[in-house]
Amino acid sequence: MSQYRKNGICFPKGFKANGIHCGIRKNKTKKDLSVIYSEVVANAAATYTQNKVKGAPIFVTKEHLKDGLAQAMICNSGNANTCNANGVEIANGMSELCAKALGIKAEDIIVASTGVIGEPMSMDPFVQHMDELCAGISDQKGSDACEGIMTTDTFKKEFCTEFMIDGVTCRIGGMAKGSGMIHPNMATMLAFLTSDVAITSELLDEVVHEVVNDTFNMVSVDGDTSTNDMLCIMANGMAKNKVIDEKNEAYEAFKAALMDICVDISRNIAKDGEGASKLLTCIVQQAPDITCAKKVAKSVITSSLFKAAMFGKDANWGRILCAIGYTDAIFDVDKIDVTLSSEAGELPVCVNGSGCGFDEDHAANVLEEDEIDILIDMHQGEGYATAWGCDLTYDYVKINGDYRT
Amino acid sequence: MSQYRKNGICFPKGFKANGIHCGIRKNKTKKDLSVIYSEVVANAAATYTQNKVKGAPIFVTKEHLKDGLAQAMICNSGNANTCNANGVEIANGMSELCAKALGIKAEDIIVASTGVIGEPMSMDPFVQHMDELCAGISDQKGSDACEGIMTTDTFKKEFCTEFMIDGVTCRIGGMAKGSGMIHPNMATMLAFLTSDVAITSELLDEVVHEVVNDTFNMVSVDGDTSTNDMLCIMANGMAKNKVIDEKNEAYEAFKAALMDICVDISRNIAKDGEGASKLLTCIVQQAPDITCAKKVAKSVITSSLFKAAMFGKDANWGRILCAIGYTDAIFDVDKIDVTLSSEAGELPVCVNGSGCGFDEDHAANVLEEDEIDILIDMHQGEGYATAWGCDLTYDYVKINGDYRT
Repeated sequence: MSQYRKNGICFPKGFKANGIHCGIRKNKTKKDLSVIYSEVVANAAATYTQNKVKGAPIFVTKEHLKDGLAQAMICNSGNANTCNANGVEIANGMSELCAKALGIKAEDIIVASTGVIGEPMSMDPFVQHMDELCAGISDQKGSDACEGIMTTDTFKKEFCTEFMIDGVTCRIGGMAKGSGMIHPNMATMLAFLTSDVAITSELLDEVVHEVVNDTFNMVSVDGDTSTNDMLCIMANGMAKNKVIDEKNEAYEAFKAALMDICVDISRNIAKDGEGASKLLTCIVQQAPDITCAKKVAKSVITSSLFKAAMFGKDANWGRILCAIGYTDAIFDVDKIDVTLSSEAGELPVCVNGSGCGFDEDHAANVLEEDEIDILIDMHQGEGYATAWGCDLTYDYVKINGDYRT
Repeated sequence: MSQYRKNGICFPKGFKANGIHCGIRKNKTKKDLSVIYSEVVANAAATYTQNKVKGAPIFVTKEHLKDGLAQAMICNSGNANTCNANGVEIANGMSELCAKALGIKAEDIIVASTGVIGEPMSMDPFVQHMDELCAGISDQKGSDACEGIMTTDTFKKEFCTEFMIDGVTCRIGGMAKGSGMIHPNMATMLAFLTSDVAITSELLDEVVHEVVNDTFNMVSVDGDTSTNDMLCIMANGMAKNKVIDEKNEAYEAFKAALMDICVDISRNIAKDGEGASKLLTCIVQQAPDITCAKKVAKSVITSSLFKAAMFGKDANWGRILCAIGYTDAIFDVDKIDVTLSSEAGELPVCVNGSGCGFDEDHAANVLEEDEIDILIDMHQGEGYATAWGCDLTYDYVKINGDYRT
């Protein structure tokens, strides 16, 4: 099982990191520049936002990962470097400064940015602080790096897991930022994974896409797909397992471990959604197929009306049926059962597409909890999916009514 | 030009209406049952929700409108009659009681409901109050009917317009309810239109679909497509114009008048969106085509992040670009200009896809107004569209956190 761990990204062998304040943000106590470094060149893969308006770092990172290799990641917060006329120039400049400071090739750098879109950006903070950042890397500074990528996140998302391949222990570490503008399509806002597993870059790319589709792409905070979403992984092979070069047992072991850590990070991004007070997990089973199950699960946790009802602890299950109904999936409404569930117990609300009546006091108890599961049994096939979201609160409106200032 | 008018639906010749409290709602001061009646059988057409979970009245109304004829509309608020095992039975019962009280055929009745989904419903209030409702109809009770269909609406949407065909004056009246669960797909929550124009039911059906696609289907309050959306029109021919039976000048005159009144109703549904403090109008021009223009306009006014920024009077235009980018339309980002505009002036924020800088004091003045236009010029074709929405406020969360109780 994956678990929370300080300096999680430095848990696999050969990874160091750091995070500092370089001056992009006005608040000097808030770190805004992070680096992750692998002692050796690693195989690397990434998934990116499908938004047609893309941050400049996305273009530069795609170019750098064409050869499937990377050795470091540089990321700033406080400015998304998106919709800036000189954005690519800035992203290239960040790579070059970082490469020089670490003594590696600029083409082996993954670049990322997060923050306000369309805000002018200067090279100055990078010129002045890149050496300091890179000189300070250590395997005890993973949490500093995690802090440096946070925006309105309220807690750090750092996880690690380990697994065995032929008696060899391999490790995966990960960190992410989420919070707002979260409705990933192919990647999440920003997630950086490290591993010491030995795997070809082709298979690394394949497994990442498989796992991301079932984890990060099943999260929504507000339905807004960011311009800067990116998930990337570096696997440096320092665990010394036999290189994974086919879809064998070792591949499956790695995939299971990667799924495990990505589920935990995804859940925590949903839980720490902007203004969120509750984690909502929608589990759809017996759908006609997986595509339908995914559409239904994601539609429910994206519905503003349902999210507001959860904030108000109101078992207004009609809004669940409504959200199921406006997906473009094809299914029979009259077979659907819905149950709300939490540590306080189970609350069946709908059987065969119609209300089944429930005790309001019991409902209030079930919905009082911080983590609510919505179990949807469609009784018409084998499709299964899980999606993660959060409630819609006054604080979401407050945070986003005044984000820039 | 269409205009607000008390008893708007009774403005065309031969229409009477009424609205009363029949006991579906606990609050006795709130009307919850409405009827509209035409002195003669009218040609009728309707558009319905595309949500796969549909209110029972939708099924009954579709059946009744198969012959393109109707003479009355009956609608309750306080219960959506959706996801109820006996829903169709109730909707049929409503028709039969209403038909009997008015002395017309049950097949000529349009039935509609709005309110909570999945709440058990009884025939009793209808049995006890249908005669009273129908006995009280008059051409001075249109506003009572309008009140009877309201849920969380804060003001009545009643409009009328008139137009000439070959020297004959024809009229259109309309009323609607909106507020929450508003993201119409084929119709709006509930809109009822009356006209004394003479037109074949085939052409009436065609013109209604054309107009609805450019008006009601371009409104969003919260992205949630209701289970009970319905727009219907009765045209009773009492204006005595030559029957419109081809797409001639008269057809175009009727279409223009219908468009006019539907734009006004749509704007007002957006303006009175649940918790809304601002009307947002997004106008897209020079898009590659109309489909792209519509997708872009609707995506912007649906973005939770942008809506929250408007509530906070924050010119965070990056969120507009972000929302444009995650549509599935195809276009060139680098040609897009964006200007925010209100009675206080114009504020260009983005030129050629990049920020152009602006004065924050001027921005604050522009965004202080209650009605904000977002002008998006894509500079790459002839496509044009307008969409209407509202800001996302604390009150939206408050209203929907506790809707049932």
